[in-house]
Amino acid sequence: MSILNLELKKVVDDSYEIEIGYELMDKLVEDLEKGLVGNIRRFAVITDSNVRDLYGKPICERLIRAGYGVDLFVFAAGEKSKTRETKANVEDAMLEKGYRRDCCIIAVGGGVVTDLAGFVAGTYGRGVPFINYATTLLAAADASVGGKTAVDTPLATNLIGLFYQPSKVYIDIAAWKSLPQRQLSSGMAETIKHACLASYDMFTFLEQNMEHILECQKFACEYIAENNCKIKYNVVMKDERESGLREVLNLGHTVGRAIETLSDYRLLHGEALAIGMAAQVQLSARLGYMSEEEAHRVCTLYQKAGLSTKIPDYIDREELVKKLYTDKKVRDGKLRFVLQKGIGDVVEFAPGVFAKPIEEELAREIIMELE
Amino acid sequence: MSILNLELKKVVDDSYEIEIGYELMDKLVEDLEKGLVGNIRRFAVITDSNVRDLYGKPICERLIRAGYGVDLFVFAAGEKSKTRETKANVEDAMLEKGYRRDCCIIAVGGGVVTDLAGFVAGTYGRGVPFINYATTLLAAADASVGGKTAVDTPLATNLIGLFYQPSKVYIDIAAWKSLPQRQLSSGMAETIKHACLASYDMFTFLEQNMEHILECQKFACEYIAENNCKIKYNVVMKDERESGLREVLNLGHTVGRAIETLSDYRLLHGEALAIGMAAQVQLSARLGYMSEEEAHRVCTLYQKAGLSTKIPDYIDREELVKKLYTDKKVRDGKLRFVLQKGIGDVVEFAPGVFAKPIEEELAREIIMELE
Repeated sequence: MSILNLELKKVVDDSYEIEIGYELMDKLVEDLEKGLVGNIRRFAVITDSNVRDLYGKPICERLIRAGYGVDLFVFAAGEKSKTRETKANVEDAMLEKGYRRDCCIIAVGGGVVTDLAGFVAGTYGRGVPFINYATTLLAAADASVGGKTAVDTPLATNLIGLFYQPSKVYIDIAAWKSLPQRQLSSGMAETIKHACLASYDMFTFLEQNMEHILECQKFACEYIAENNCKIKYNVVMKDERESGLREVLNLGHTVGRAIETLSDYRLLHGEALAIGMAAQVQLSARLGYMSEEEAHRVCTLYQKAGLSTKIPDYIDREELVKKLYTDKKVRDGKLRFVLQKGIGDVVEFAPGVFAKPIEEELAREIIMELE
Repeated sequence: MSILNLELKKVVDDSYEIEIGYELMDKLVEDLEKGLVGNIRRFAVITDSNVRDLYGKPICERLIRAGYGVDLFVFAAGEKSKTRETKANVEDAMLEKGYRRDCCIIAVGGGVVTDLAGFVAGTYGRGVPFINYATTLLAAADASVGGKTAVDTPLATNLIGLFYQPSKVYIDIAAWKSLPQRQLSSGMAETIKHACLASYDMFTFLEQNMEHILECQKFACEYIAENNCKIKYNVVMKDERESGLREVLNLGHTVGRAIETLSDYRLLHGEALAIGMAAQVQLSARLGYMSEEEAHRVCTLYQKAGLSTKIPDYIDREELVKKLYTDKKVRDGKLRFVLQKGIGDVVEFAPGVFAKPIEEELAREIIMELE
């Protein structure tokens, strides 16, 4: 019998830049020419049917003009495409075109594109570089920081995936103008959540400038793009493996995700999150962590962003409670909630513990009382 | 316009132990009780139909007796199971049973099980710990060091996967006795390759002890298990991302993999590799990097291990050349080969360059002249 010790300790540097600006397609090509991903000459541009013509094709054309090898891979827009099947289809199309390890993937689109293309990049040839060109507010708020990639399966959302950092992220604010109002509003849900959990200043900025944001005025969009990234970075940097602190990003998501699933994706992620946040602030207020006025302010801001905080009639509230409390995350009959402490902070229940187990009875009360 | 710099530099420690011994199932449970994977109480044991009864179930029973939550996930034995579909089936079965992030995967079996279960572990909940209980010589020689996990697709072998290190590897030599002779011989192919590329001493040991190895005598099996790991570790440790040095592990694989594919997996990996190694030594001899006698010694050792170095009649040699030179790795009409320098070393063509571009004409000559 013998034991071998394999020493595999090393320094990993996954640092990257996020560039926030207007019409960054030329800048992307310029960065590549300056060696952003080394000597790579071949690029797989992955996008969805919504973004193909507006950004996917134009980026391909610019890359071809610059002398690179490029192919465009397009899948149907929407959360329902975020599956293992779509991933396999993209992989097979890339293999068919002869892509091997010496390529780079460019994700062009919103959160679904980033999550999926990042996952493809992380497992293609055991990992090729990828660049994220974010065209939606939601992608800017949620997908630009944290390195989370994933697909959904019939039994779980975002559970199959990996942590994989991009080489660079571009947040093209000009693209927000092309978003339908509903998408823009939905994207605001995570932005407001960030303000709620980390910055009272940002919250008041949002209260005062919501109209400017929804009109995509430059100063307002830049402000929120920057602050979203900073807040998320501060949380993620301190806790990359989601052990403790990172859990605060789940604020509002406990109920939000259940509603999203029960709506069978009739609600967009942000629309479901707005309702989840309404439930969360009611719970936080009930437990004395924030005032009724503060809870009301949060709901009002969501409404100002064009998001309803009401549970749709087609969702059965008893079924919602049942879904929450039969979830596999429930332990000893209790489900854990992140809770707000006033506006701009969260409750730390014990050092490093940012979620509180809540009994089914109390959760039912809150959900039944919601508007 | 603004640029945020995300600093994500950190020290990663993926060190782990390889334990080589006889009947290590009790030792595995003991290690878990001592905290090998922390406080995890739930284990998904992944195995194939060959290994289920001999090791899969016995390991599960031991874990259950020790008070752990355990489920056994079994797929059909064989390289043809190493697919995205099998991975998805295992994931869905785990989700169905309620596995979330707080679990550990135990791979029990040969190289296919390790490659597949390691890939499942690397993307389940964005990465859960995994333990490798290797029951074959091939897994001991090839899959215990390097962290490579992958599946095959219709268009590519091992191209979808990731680098993911186990928490510990157990090499149970007792299990080798249960292997059919054909499997044991096939497993010897990588072992002989390791000797060829790194250790003249090991090569002579194999020449002198092949009968003892094929009878699974303890001293001989321990010797090769240990030396396989050490050689591979020395190569891999110096070059985790397969940029230069690690390429030497592809010795014999250029032709070997093509033959494996053309045989439609009638040949086992090691059987195909033996033929690939025969082609490689002929090429090395032709180019003056080794003598004809040394080339002959290598082929003789493969034959002693029960492996034919002849190309089977059902493989068309012209088709083999065509497959090699239409491969996507071909550049400027040349395919790169790692070549032996005598026995126990490889040729370093320039600093850090361990492969030489070979013209189709020369490769055809070698292949046509092979026995």
